[in-house]
Amino acid sequence: MPPADLLFDSSDARRSALPLAHARHLRLDGTLELELGGRLAEVEVACETWGELSPERDNAILVCHALSGDSHAARHDADDAPGWWEILVGPGKSIDTDRFFVVCQNVLGGCRGTTGPSSIDPATGRPYGADFPTITIGDMVEVQRRALERLGIASLRAVVGGSLGGQQAMTWAVRHPERVGGCVVVASSARLTSQAIAFDVVGRNAIVHDPDFRGGQYYAQGGGPVVGLALARMLAHITYLSRDSMTEKFDPGRTQPRDVPTAFEKRFSVGSYLAHQGDKFVERFDANSYVTLSLAMDLFDLGGDPATLRETLERSAVRWLVLAFESDWLFPPEQSRRLVDARISGGRPVSWCSVEARGGHDSFLLEEKLDVYGGMIGGFLGSLDPSEPPPGDPAATPAPAATRGMFHGHRLDQAAILELILPGESVLDLGCGNGGLMRELRRRGHPVLGIELDEHSILAAIRDGHDVVQQDLEQGLCPFRDGQFDWVVLSQTLQSVTETERILREMIRVGRRAIASFPNFAYHRLRTMLFEQGRSPKAEGAYGFEWWNTPNRRFPSIVDFEEFCRDQRIAIERRVYLDSETGTRIAEDGDPNWNADVAIFVLRRAS
Amino acid sequence: MPPADLLFDSSDARRSALPLAHARHLRLDGTLELELGGRLAEVEVACETWGELSPERDNAILVCHALSGDSHAARHDADDAPGWWEILVGPGKSIDTDRFFVVCQNVLGGCRGTTGPSSIDPATGRPYGADFPTITIGDMVEVQRRALERLGIASLRAVVGGSLGGQQAMTWAVRHPERVGGCVVVASSARLTSQAIAFDVVGRNAIVHDPDFRGGQYYAQGGGPVVGLALARMLAHITYLSRDSMTEKFDPGRTQPRDVPTAFEKRFSVGSYLAHQGDKFVERFDANSYVTLSLAMDLFDLGGDPATLRETLERSAVRWLVLAFESDWLFPPEQSRRLVDARISGGRPVSWCSVEARGGHDSFLLEEKLDVYGGMIGGFLGSLDPSEPPPGDPAATPAPAATRGMFHGHRLDQAAILELILPGESVLDLGCGNGGLMRELRRRGHPVLGIELDEHSILAAIRDGHDVVQQDLEQGLCPFRDGQFDWVVLSQTLQSVTETERILREMIRVGRRAIASFPNFAYHRLRTMLFEQGRSPKAEGAYGFEWWNTPNRRFPSIVDFEEFCRDQRIAIERRVYLDSETGTRIAEDGDPNWNADVAIFVLRRAS
Repeated sequence: MPPADLLFDSSDARRSALPLAHARHLRLDGTLELELGGRLAEVEVACETWGELSPERDNAILVCHALSGDSHAARHDADDAPGWWEILVGPGKSIDTDRFFVVCQNVLGGCRGTTGPSSIDPATGRPYGADFPTITIGDMVEVQRRALERLGIASLRAVVGGSLGGQQAMTWAVRHPERVGGCVVVASSARLTSQAIAFDVVGRNAIVHDPDFRGGQYYAQGGGPVVGLALARMLAHITYLSRDSMTEKFDPGRTQPRDVPTAFEKRFSVGSYLAHQGDKFVERFDANSYVTLSLAMDLFDLGGDPATLRETLERSAVRWLVLAFESDWLFPPEQSRRLVDARISGGRPVSWCSVEARGGHDSFLLEEKLDVYGGMIGGFLGSLDPSEPPPGDPAATPAPAATRGMFHGHRLDQAAILELILPGESVLDLGCGNGGLMRELRRRGHPVLGIELDEHSILAAIRDGHDVVQQDLEQGLCPFRDGQFDWVVLSQTLQSVTETERILREMIRVGRRAIASFPNFAYHRLRTMLFEQGRSPKAEGAYGFEWWNTPNRRFPSIVDFEEFCRDQRIAIERRVYLDSETGTRIAEDGDPNWNADVAIFVLRRAS
Repeated sequence: MPPADLLFDSSDARRSALPLAHARHLRLDGTLELELGGRLAEVEVACETWGELSPERDNAILVCHALSGDSHAARHDADDAPGWWEILVGPGKSIDTDRFFVVCQNVLGGCRGTTGPSSIDPATGRPYGADFPTITIGDMVEVQRRALERLGIASLRAVVGGSLGGQQAMTWAVRHPERVGGCVVVASSARLTSQAIAFDVVGRNAIVHDPDFRGGQYYAQGGGPVVGLALARMLAHITYLSRDSMTEKFDPGRTQPRDVPTAFEKRFSVGSYLAHQGDKFVERFDANSYVTLSLAMDLFDLGGDPATLRETLERSAVRWLVLAFESDWLFPPEQSRRLVDARISGGRPVSWCSVEARGGHDSFLLEEKLDVYGGMIGGFLGSLDPSEPPPGDPAATPAPAATRGMFHGHRLDQAAILELILPGESVLDLGCGNGGLMRELRRRGHPVLGIELDEHSILAAIRDGHDVVQQDLEQGLCPFRDGQFDWVVLSQTLQSVTETERILREMIRVGRRAIASFPNFAYHRLRTMLFEQGRSPKAEGAYGFEWWNTPNRRFPSIVDFEEFCRDQRIAIERRVYLDSETGTRIAEDGDPNWNADVAIFVLRRAS
């Protein structure tokens, strides 16, 4: 291992010499008291930076690395070796170094320049080895905080991290909410699944039961537990990939392995790949660091039950963006989603998307869906900028198009809905799409949260500065508290939700009032078409589809809806009927069930 | 390890002394030539049996065990230790020992009485160790076949197995189709995923790189690679459980491990459990056997691409039942499904269900869904009995109820469909339910296959002796060949399928002719209701639901359907219109779009 006073391990071919301004080796003042007991008398931190710190010192972003990463997130110039998050960090990229001052530090307990088990224990003059104390993610964050202070940075625009890095980002947002503007958590969760811990346990057992581990003091002998560490890495590597991505990569020619120089089994294609990964890893990583960091990861726990987690996350008033990947089975989306539910039930801002990526846990390091997850991170970071015009600002927004018929757009419907909402009232917008209604609501100063299923609509809404949570309306609104919003709006979407009863019950539970608008199936044109022509009704707008390809699933008339509300004890406070062909409103006594093509109902719980 | 001439390992506390009639140790005649080269001069087989062989010797069922199993599938009497498939094998159970003569043998390469690496190599006088040749599933089956011959059994009613046992069952059915009546494959596949091989590779590397492995000759020293074998078992054990079942078991009290005596890490609840599993396994299993059997499993490959797999499985004209479990990620259902697709595209009989179980790969050993998967296995085995009346036999079947209106049952609709199908024509019944139409078709001698989504309906249909394949009609009929059936029938289900165009195109692709019956949305009662009352139409039968809870998704009239077929170039050969209220047929010139509540169309590809 490199002596602790060297800036970088010179044996690391990936990294060239860097100007001191971009790569520093900081020695922290004083002793570090550790959360689980014990202390470290001297702590040194390897740190790299990109971009310029603004005169106000308010544009710093801390990027946190994962288990096997280091401070080299991206290249500093064209001749530099690429970093581990090269695809995301750089000029004009999602984490834009033209705009932000980006900082990345090797974590405490690591082996890439920051104090860890391979560092010299000043008390003994030899490496800590297995005597390095058990550390937590909180200890890592405390070291990061002190190192940032040494750089003159008291607060962060945002902290961003994936996997173990996501655990650090969450800890920042919970421990130091006053110092953080936004928190981006990627492929991470409040605590690991028992399955994920199980894999780590097997990996650690492989390391410490390797006879060459020698109780952790293997540095003098050279070598160390190379078999155990390689086995741990092979196993972990499987968990970073998805089953499908492994099939794609290794199934063709599965018994024609690459002939890599290795002592491990290479009968199968996937075997020689893993052997190569294991052998490579041993060259660049310290076994004691692996044990230390993986244990810190396993011990991380913001709360196992929803109530504890909500209480923990309530401390953090900062905005959160939580991203997961559909094929990630190490940090599965449903685990990450628990963070989102806790944020929501605690009434704290959050955006959320589980991105449809095939690459497994590693997806946050891959280009596959970079346009989506990178776009969301970039959009979110941009919306934290205090100098940006708020979304919906007239200066930044084209004027809304002239009021038009429902069937030629949503303006008439939207205008009627906006009239119902009083100044300052909060709104949950179900099926928010790209954020059109939200934009107008925020322009008028309403607090608003969007719910949407489609990831590209979510991307657009996040880029527009909104908080958006991915959710399938068929599942209801379970994380939301009773009466959490003044209004819950379901605009022209009721007819495409199959779970009609569930969603309407949920709307009047979560909103003090709810707005449901839908096309009226008993509108005279539709009635006449079925009656006179014997054809499944079709019209412009929401009914502008064939019987065999319509996205509509439910076909209520105004009378049907009234009866439903009566039977289900849902109170109707107000009714607005529109004839969007003529752009007029239909009065209560103007036979709306015949004359209106759109109905808007204001609902609440029957008292 | 036990000397090879002892019947059982006397150190095994699980097993008591057994009467010789039920537990035998067979010495095979001659030398065994192995598929991948090499030979074994002497092969001995541990074998147990249950029940009585019929005088015709036609009721034998071979049960094949998984990686760590043995010949003791079930207890032989009340004092006996329970076997590994105790829940399935026994008097009156799914594999009914009152009815069948059940045989289970320890596999070649194992360490529980059958020749394996721990057996004495007659050429050297010491255990084979790592010199034991690489064997295949085919070698195991050849040993089983010879052992059965020694028992006087030339043919099997069925062969049944899960996981590695499923690989043996498939090999039997493909190699010796003339000797096998039925093949039951549970939680297994044509070959492992690369992910599953990857886990096995890590496990084998852990064993053979344990210094105590000593090149495989560790028997004299005692002990052996206990760390490596325990690590392999811990890792494998994770893959046998589902993530959800691990969460349920280990998440509460995750950091309060049981205090088991072990040298492995026990900081977490899941860790102490795995340590215990690892330590226990080492006591009862031989490391060389583990390497030998897991390698045989990884090498098993009936074909990686659909065409090869189809050609392989075409050799087997016997009936197959393939079962998977939704939460099994080691042998994921989509892998098992490839077997089913190959059977289907090869025109070979198969039934298939992916059972909704939470227990992961181990589900085939658990009681959780025993009623479903055990019921299917029992029903399938029962239907192989040549002495049973065929399904639909009038002697065994209650007479169909009197012809009734569509909206009071399906008899009128069904009777009209049955009239269209000529003697001997084959039928694919989409959405077959419990098999009502299939029963009638088979009674009339038609070859028929059912498609159904619901596992309880599938269970009922399999128990009734039908071949049924689980499939979601929304996904089309992709494994079926063009023109594979004379008829494809979709009876009163078109209205609940969203992918209208896809399913109709698939029906006329797979069937030389197709029958689609559906309720007519322009029936006069429905028209009048919308027109006069302004209510979303509702009636008896298929329209007997509210607008907000109907399972119907599509609402075509007869005129709409005609137009659709014209536009999509689907030829209509015949039309049958029913008024189920009066139980009469409506003529073409009787304004069926007004008067008929049910329409039946005979379709084919436009030429």
